Amino acid sequence: MKVPEIMKKIEIINQGENYSLSTTNTQTPKLGKGEVLLKVFSSGLNRADIFQAEGKYPPPLGASDILGLEVSGEVIKKSSDVHTLEIGDKVCALLSGGGYAEYVTANPELCFHIPDHIDTLYAAALPEALFTVWFNIFQLGNLKENETILIHGGSSGIGTMGIQIAKLFKNKIIVTAGTDEKCKACIDFGADDAINYNKNDFLSYLQSNSSKTRVDVILDMVGGDYVEKNLKLLKYNGRLIFIAFINGSRVSLDLLKVMTKKLIITGSTLRSQSIEKKIEIAQSIRKNLWPLVKSGNIKPIVDSTYPFCRAMNAHDKMKSGEHIGKILLINK
Amino acid sequence: MKVPEIMKKIEIINQGENYSLSTTNTQTPKLGKGEVLLKVFSSGLNRADIFQAEGKYPPPLGASDILGLEVSGEVIKKSSDVHTLEIGDKVCALLSGGGYAEYVTANPELCFHIPDHIDTLYAAALPEALFTVWFNIFQLGNLKENETILIHGGSSGIGTMGIQIAKLFKNKIIVTAGTDEKCKACIDFGADDAINYNKNDFLSYLQSNSSKTRVDVILDMVGGDYVEKNLKLLKYNGRLIFIAFINGSRVSLDLLKVMTKKLIITGSTLRSQSIEKKIEIAQSIRKNLWPLVKSGNIKPIVDSTYPFCRAMNAHDKMKSGEHIGKILLINK
Repeated sequence: MKVPEIMKKIEIINQGENYSLSTTNTQTPKLGKGEVLLKVFSSGLNRADIFQAEGKYPPPLGASDILGLEVSGEVIKKSSDVHTLEIGDKVCALLSGGGYAEYVTANPELCFHIPDHIDTLYAAALPEALFTVWFNIFQLGNLKENETILIHGGSSGIGTMGIQIAKLFKNKIIVTAGTDEKCKACIDFGADDAINYNKNDFLSYLQSNSSKTRVDVILDMVGGDYVEKNLKLLKYNGRLIFIAFINGSRVSLDLLKVMTKKLIITGSTLRSQSIEKKIEIAQSIRKNLWPLVKSGNIKPIVDSTYPFCRAMNAHDKMKSGEHIGKILLINK
Repeated sequence: MKVPEIMKKIEIINQGENYSLSTTNTQTPKLGKGEVLLKVFSSGLNRADIFQAEGKYPPPLGASDILGLEVSGEVIKKSSDVHTLEIGDKVCALLSGGGYAEYVTANPELCFHIPDHIDTLYAAALPEALFTVWFNIFQLGNLKENETILIHGGSSGIGTMGIQIAKLFKNKIIVTAGTDEKCKACIDFGADDAINYNKNDFLSYLQSNSSKTRVDVILDMVGGDYVEKNLKLLKYNGRLIFIAFINGSRVSLDLLKVMTKKLIITGSTLRSQSIEKKIEIAQSIRKNLWPLVKSGNIKPIVDSTYPFCRAMNAHDKMKSGEHIGKILLINK
């Protein structure tokens, strides 16, 4: 396939709180050693895209300044030292940036062949959620069979993936979400209990029930006043994992419980990890999760799709918090 | 050896902030299944003893209400199912309580034979420090060869043991302590740098030097305003371990660094761990540390010894914070 020298990308206008997005032309990226060039079918939205557009989250050194951390696409060119992918392969890929464009280069170790039964457009909903859930819940958080997990933001892209995977690994799953509709969706995806945080305080709710529920692992993207409640809710040896701080990261808390209950507080951002670490996570996903994607047990959960030219509407949808699952940009 | 029915113990008078200690008579403890009875040579002081006497730290369920978490002594009786120790063996032992007395029962799995070259009285300085350092720094904190560790309270019983062991495992060691004399002692024990916290802020000191020192692991017994400084000082993948909160456990801090630097905040108290976990730690110590005690590379660091009848003076000494290494009570 002939690759044009100029491609379309989505550009950030007025980077800052009141940014907007528009389509413009730019140089098609040049293929580097050990890379493949993908023609993008669709690109997954992540909250990090919004932070970057607002100027709060600069791309790491060496990464594209174009938004977009995951895509689905077709391999249309490859470096001669790439042997795991062929021209014409349809894959989804984790990127360090550049996904909001017609073409993007990717590391073949971070590409996954899309199974036939999954819509090639929808496959862009998989990489960030798979990597984030697997690394944070199962590697950092070491969630073990039959343990109980609490996922805040259960209806988010990460949350819905977390529910699916924890269910397959035989965990008890509790989530929080902001509406009854979202709570119902979480239960449908496999959660055992879902708390509407606009109606109930999750700590009071879980401690007032007859079983006085306590949990082994908490995946938190909220922070703020959730933190101290999380510490109260964790069992001895419990793990609290941060992947975002929607309500702020500056908190007042009593660390005594960390010592007396031998808790672990940790967290991570996927983007800041080294390429070696990302490849290590990818290998673990290929072994432990991708067979479940192929067998149809793990599905991309897509809230809505927008054409590239309506990227700003897609961002507004994510900012509204009304979505359930992933939002995608479609390259037509 | 004939065991008297009545023995001396140290009793807490007026449990609370203004407690005192005095010697009184009590029933000699009865030997249980799988236990040995020790005639106590000496008993190590721990800060937990003070908290218990002040009424802030009740003994765990099933533990003796007599103070004392470690002793050296002689096996004078053993249950028929104990095969690892013989009558007459001289050991030091980790206890769940009861060490401030003439006799105490112990779990043989938590007893260690005292090497000939170590004073039997001084051996009581070993168990709590060995268990606390090994479990927190090397197991929870996973300190690896050539990594840098910061130990707050470097001249304490735990601190001086931490310096010795980290030195043997080829780590770079920085400590904080409250006087120049204590700092000098820490350097003599093997620390690479020692910061007098009454003269220098450890964060400014370490960040203003030419190498802009950052650390992999921090062992903190201080808490309070040290916590946020600790988070700033840790490298990517750094670990912060709490074993006490001398300056308080309620803190205000920004957790963002936990996520962006993939830090781990954790901690533990030895006493609250299950007997199974303590035995597991003991087995690891027997394998990894006890050979170094036998070879003379790890030594008990003793600040001072007091006869049992002067236990209150020993507590006052610990409360003054003037000690370097362990304080022991001698049973004469």
